[in-house]
Amino acid sequence: MRAVDVIRVKRDGGILPPDAIRAFVEGATSGSWSDDQLGAMLMAIVLRGMTADETAVMTDAMVASGHRLDLSELPGPRVDKHSTGGVGDKTSLVLAPLVAACGATVPMMSGRGLGHTGGTLDKLEAIPGFRTALTDADMRQALKAAGCCIVGQTRDIAPADRKLYAVRDVTATVESLALITASIMSKKIAEGIDVLVLDVKVGRGAFMKTLDEARALATSLVHTGQRAGLRAEALITAMDAPLGRAIGNALEVAEAIDALRGRGPDDFMHVVTALASRMLICGGLADDDAAARARVERALASGEALERFRIMVEWQDGDPRIVDDLARLPRAPIVAPATCARDGVIVSIDAERLGRAAMVLGAGRSRADEAIDPAVGLVMRVSPGDRVRAGDVLADVHGRDAAAVEQVSGLVREAIDLGDAASPRGPLVLERVS
Amino acid sequence: MRAVDVIRVKRDGGILPPDAIRAFVEGATSGSWSDDQLGAMLMAIVLRGMTADETAVMTDAMVASGHRLDLSELPGPRVDKHSTGGVGDKTSLVLAPLVAACGATVPMMSGRGLGHTGGTLDKLEAIPGFRTALTDADMRQALKAAGCCIVGQTRDIAPADRKLYAVRDVTATVESLALITASIMSKKIAEGIDVLVLDVKVGRGAFMKTLDEARALATSLVHTGQRAGLRAEALITAMDAPLGRAIGNALEVAEAIDALRGRGPDDFMHVVTALASRMLICGGLADDDAAARARVERALASGEALERFRIMVEWQDGDPRIVDDLARLPRAPIVAPATCARDGVIVSIDAERLGRAAMVLGAGRSRADEAIDPAVGLVMRVSPGDRVRAGDVLADVHGRDAAAVEQVSGLVREAIDLGDAASPRGPLVLERVS
Repeated sequence: MRAVDVIRVKRDGGILPPDAIRAFVEGATSGSWSDDQLGAMLMAIVLRGMTADETAVMTDAMVASGHRLDLSELPGPRVDKHSTGGVGDKTSLVLAPLVAACGATVPMMSGRGLGHTGGTLDKLEAIPGFRTALTDADMRQALKAAGCCIVGQTRDIAPADRKLYAVRDVTATVESLALITASIMSKKIAEGIDVLVLDVKVGRGAFMKTLDEARALATSLVHTGQRAGLRAEALITAMDAPLGRAIGNALEVAEAIDALRGRGPDDFMHVVTALASRMLICGGLADDDAAARARVERALASGEALERFRIMVEWQDGDPRIVDDLARLPRAPIVAPATCARDGVIVSIDAERLGRAAMVLGAGRSRADEAIDPAVGLVMRVSPGDRVRAGDVLADVHGRDAAAVEQVSGLVREAIDLGDAASPRGPLVLERVS
Repeated sequence: MRAVDVIRVKRDGGILPPDAIRAFVEGATSGSWSDDQLGAMLMAIVLRGMTADETAVMTDAMVASGHRLDLSELPGPRVDKHSTGGVGDKTSLVLAPLVAACGATVPMMSGRGLGHTGGTLDKLEAIPGFRTALTDADMRQALKAAGCCIVGQTRDIAPADRKLYAVRDVTATVESLALITASIMSKKIAEGIDVLVLDVKVGRGAFMKTLDEARALATSLVHTGQRAGLRAEALITAMDAPLGRAIGNALEVAEAIDALRGRGPDDFMHVVTALASRMLICGGLADDDAAARARVERALASGEALERFRIMVEWQDGDPRIVDDLARLPRAPIVAPATCARDGVIVSIDAERLGRAAMVLGAGRSRADEAIDPAVGLVMRVSPGDRVRAGDVLADVHGRDAAAVEQVSGLVREAIDLGDAASPRGPLVLERVS
């Protein structure tokens, strides 16, 4: 089956037969399809779309392009969570040890930040010594010891996705429901998990700006996972304001550790508990929401969740002393307050603008090959609905450079919308798709 | 202006500003756009289309990617013809010397055959010694001596088109009105001509299968040429049955020489005269159709057109003796008749199927890097409307290999539709677009 003939079918809006989709994915992996053919095919998919059947076949082919982990020797259900990315979203750092403490095995594979959204691997690497590139054997040992690990995608996992994503990134073909679905789900299926709970974020700080878009993505992800034999479901959660108070890598690790002690900000604990509960229920570790929430509560209160985190850090070569001494995390030389210019009520906080402000400090990257500064970032002191006065501190700006700190203080002020009154904050968990 | 941002605009159906189109064309030429980006952009153009303005800017940018010939030192209007390609279409071989004999300079740049359609350069190279790769200086000398030349596109002419066509060929992005227009017109504008008459073919043997498609292409080509300052117009001509009787390179050269003696088949002479007349009128060498036809008639009857052909062959290092001795052209070892299986009236002859039959003999190529056999091909003995009996000869099959000749005899029979009565053959020149 010649590449040009496969491309022509999709160009003309046809439905690709399974062998054509497999030829495309295998061609991307082996290099037998040239880059121009991959670019043209991806654009045809973006503009013509793919059916759920085509998406499922493409996902399977991407799994088959590499190695699928077999973790059946490990105890309990093998459970993971995937978030579509937000600002201040350190949920994974808490969920992996928390759900492990409740009896699951959590072999989490995460990614890095790009643009205004952060990445779990970058956050963990703020811990001195922490390694996210583990061998298969190291990963199994960490899982046995801690019940969880958080690692980068290995070269064996869905190599077709690595190639296709590199092409999509430079050809304006990222934005496709089918391609996003196949990219996310192929990696998750190859992890060897039984259960996947997706956190599809919607709002100003998320990739999906409307509930309709988020619902379509959640449905596509969940159904594709279910067709591949996973128990999969999704929560659609709000990402207008940042989640929690910290934005920036070491700052978010500190906030995650607070949360593992049960002392995280309310909004963050609310989303963590909702996701953890669904992971336990789908994993057969709790019968209903009340039981799941009680189990989560116990794991936090008993210190078991924090203990799992400590063991995971240790097995991934990080310094476990940071757990009890947050001062051992990288610290920025300058911490300056961003203050409020006038009296008012905080109507909204724009997560995307805060994410971009953190990038100015060096906490994020605009290109995949850029380095980031683990120490810098923002810690918000206010939430939507708060009444503030001129001179009040809106956020602490942690920076390395006085000029950048000054600039970012201004950006923080601009990201916060002040008014006379605020409508009550809407729900954080908007819908469940299963 | 980053490639990914330009691609995104077209992906989303936007109109590209001129500098974005120029960035794309320059990126293709210099290699600063990667192949995957070119493939994605071309697919976005195929599926989203381009306005007439965008097409004109793209054409200009492709001209500017190379060298534009200045032929202003040569006498008379500089006139060319371009055909969108057909079966048995040896029109260029006759038109160049014929229109030169009428007072124009004809600096014709032609192409090679692909698939079922033939190419002018392949036909001329059937003449022993004939060179189609001329330097700029050689080309000017041939033009001064003969008033015409027929050469391949030099490396300096629209190099962006060479790169983009190579990508289009393997990415199913050939079929786009805008891209076809920019490809054809950039090369013609760069030739340094004043007048261009386009022969847009429509029917079973042509790329455009319907009159609507042909009209859209003719309009796009003509308007783009006019915007670049050419006097441009198009004739839409029928390509259901092959034009003339010969299909195959040396066989078509022989038929063209017959035509230059005024003795070509009626259908072929009709199209040649129509195109030549429009070239003379647009070039200011005749006031009206009657005057133009009389001038063409005189150039054929006086032998002046044939003489120009002889001089052109000589200046392009071909053996001019072939003009008076067709036996000096390459000849196939086997010439066998394809005979009729039953009595009937010829309802139609399928040009595309005959073109493909000629490919089986070796007269054409399915890939651009294949060699062709100049000697082989078909000479039709019948036309639509003819009454035939079982055993009558339908065509002479000129081949090198008995099995291929046998196979092609069958293909010829299948390409001819026999019935009880035929409707009269429709007009050959269907419309004029100016």
